[in-house]
Amino acid sequence: MSNKIYFTPGPAQLFYTFEEHLKRALSLDIPSISHRSSVFIKTIEETTEALKELLELPDGYNIYFLNSANEAWDRIIQNLVEHSSHHFANGAFSKKFYDFAKAQNKSSTIHEVSDGQVFTDWTIPSEAELIGITKNETSVGFTITEEEIATLRKNNPDKLIALDVVSASPSLSVNFTNVDTAYLSVQKAFGLPAGLGIWIVNERCHEIAERRASSTSIGSYRALPNLKKFGDKHQTPETPNMLAIYTLGKIAKDMLQIGLKRLRNDTIYKATLLNQAVESHSELEHFVTSKNHRSKTTIVANAKNAEQIISSFEKKEIIIGTGYGKYKSNQIRIANFPTHSKESVEMVCDLLKEVK
Amino acid sequence: MSNKIYFTPGPAQLFYTFEEHLKRALSLDIPSISHRSSVFIKTIEETTEALKELLELPDGYNIYFLNSANEAWDRIIQNLVEHSSHHFANGAFSKKFYDFAKAQNKSSTIHEVSDGQVFTDWTIPSEAELIGITKNETSVGFTITEEEIATLRKNNPDKLIALDVVSASPSLSVNFTNVDTAYLSVQKAFGLPAGLGIWIVNERCHEIAERRASSTSIGSYRALPNLKKFGDKHQTPETPNMLAIYTLGKIAKDMLQIGLKRLRNDTIYKATLLNQAVESHSELEHFVTSKNHRSKTTIVANAKNAEQIISSFEKKEIIIGTGYGKYKSNQIRIANFPTHSKESVEMVCDLLKEVK
Repeated sequence: MSNKIYFTPGPAQLFYTFEEHLKRALSLDIPSISHRSSVFIKTIEETTEALKELLELPDGYNIYFLNSANEAWDRIIQNLVEHSSHHFANGAFSKKFYDFAKAQNKSSTIHEVSDGQVFTDWTIPSEAELIGITKNETSVGFTITEEEIATLRKNNPDKLIALDVVSASPSLSVNFTNVDTAYLSVQKAFGLPAGLGIWIVNERCHEIAERRASSTSIGSYRALPNLKKFGDKHQTPETPNMLAIYTLGKIAKDMLQIGLKRLRNDTIYKATLLNQAVESHSELEHFVTSKNHRSKTTIVANAKNAEQIISSFEKKEIIIGTGYGKYKSNQIRIANFPTHSKESVEMVCDLLKEVK
Repeated sequence: MSNKIYFTPGPAQLFYTFEEHLKRALSLDIPSISHRSSVFIKTIEETTEALKELLELPDGYNIYFLNSANEAWDRIIQNLVEHSSHHFANGAFSKKFYDFAKAQNKSSTIHEVSDGQVFTDWTIPSEAELIGITKNETSVGFTITEEEIATLRKNNPDKLIALDVVSASPSLSVNFTNVDTAYLSVQKAFGLPAGLGIWIVNERCHEIAERRASSTSIGSYRALPNLKKFGDKHQTPETPNMLAIYTLGKIAKDMLQIGLKRLRNDTIYKATLLNQAVESHSELEHFVTSKNHRSKTTIVANAKNAEQIISSFEKKEIIIGTGYGKYKSNQIRIANFPTHSKESVEMVCDLLKEVK
């Protein structure tokens, strides 16, 4: 890696042990051994177990490997939605999940509020089979609260709830019992290269997929019953991104070694520093107005001189993110992931004070 | 990498320059930079151009990045087949493409002959929109000839032809003008870690996908019109396996540097050595009886003592493949990919003489 430190919200800074694990994977010939070998079956099992522990998954929740969060949107709709899903959107990524449903010709519905604003209408259309929500809307730095998710679950016991935990897990505490399916990509908070997605599903998802499969097509190699058939043997239907599965498992174990409590306390501590730095800066203001809903992993601020700030940081070899999409030139985004040390975050805060 | 040399037909030995390019990618922060940055757009463009040259693609053929050949089967059916496809199968992988079509509820048909046998009936049902053929059936070491593909093209000008070039390209000369779409995964002849698939499509595929998209769903982020929309800008819809795209481009350039003619002549030379070693061995016999159809990249032989042979090789740190599926214990498979030097193949042949 270069001397630069990436505070971009994804692709992001690699986890600080990544290169070491990658070297070890190569010395073990992980990319050359058979994906059906006992060594690799053990690798899948270890990675899956480490992830379940790190994410504090309840019993009965399974983990499958996809290639991106985009694919998770695709497969969730394909496997689990017959006619309609309902989506909560206040930013680019939450909106995209709805777009994916429409692309599959579902008569899905959306409650869309302005970017970064709190949701005002929690009514779910009766025809919706699945509700799509986003724990951390990376594009604008909005976090849905655990209370909101719990209430949604309570009020909709019969519908599936799908939670996007991209750039949220494992940094934030998420009660997965409140949702039926969740997904993430590893190039955010896990600090791995892009190319692997994680799909979490519970028994209800399996039942629905099995039932739907008897009367319609829910895909081929990544139809949920097929993922389960292979997953039960700690295998994947296809030759997967073996290097990523290996290194993800090692990084998950490193994070468990650090300790979940410490990892999350550090996340809160660093977020507090970054938030204070934004608040005390004359040219910056938080984009998300509701304090309770401000992301702790993706700090997003309006900045008149965003480009100037970003380029000042770049001169110091610190890369912070631009705003997403239409906010590219008037926002900055700063990621706060497990790989970012307190010291490096303090450095970012000090630098922020210097630049206008 | 360890001292072992993998002659397994995939996952396989990494290309000998892979680690060097991987190190360079990490020093350039390829996994941390934005996948929308000019640096990465240039990377995609360079990789695509190198691949087009290496595969000698005709004008009007585009390359898109998927995650595996499994995904190519999935997307080809989803994008290009309304009702029916017709498949030629004489091994596990050619059969699987048909299974994928059936999983998507297509009324597809199959001409299936015994494993490794030549196809006898080239009649194509009139309702078939697409014909699936396999250049190199990796499971049994059967290669379809260029003449057979040319005749199929000539006799079926109005149907799409999809060619599986997994473990065939870039080692074998393939005339892509005879097919409309083709695909491969990089963990075979290209010598990269698994996790990237290459999908080649011509204008006819684009037209059909566009037309179908107006009346039905052909998927979401990897619907062909969406791949084209992003591909035309040298981008991908999602954050892709950036490390793989970077290293693939570098390896494709290395192969161009070696020279296509030399790479292919070497493939033929090494295949000749391996074939002779099989023929002169008292306990081995070629599985594919038709000499013209024996694979030059995947040498497959019946071996009464397959396990013993494989373990004798392993003691010398040379890993050769078992038979695929039901042939696991009574066949050996030896890959002949660009990363395998003439010297290492000579060593394999010498070792074969010693073991019974």
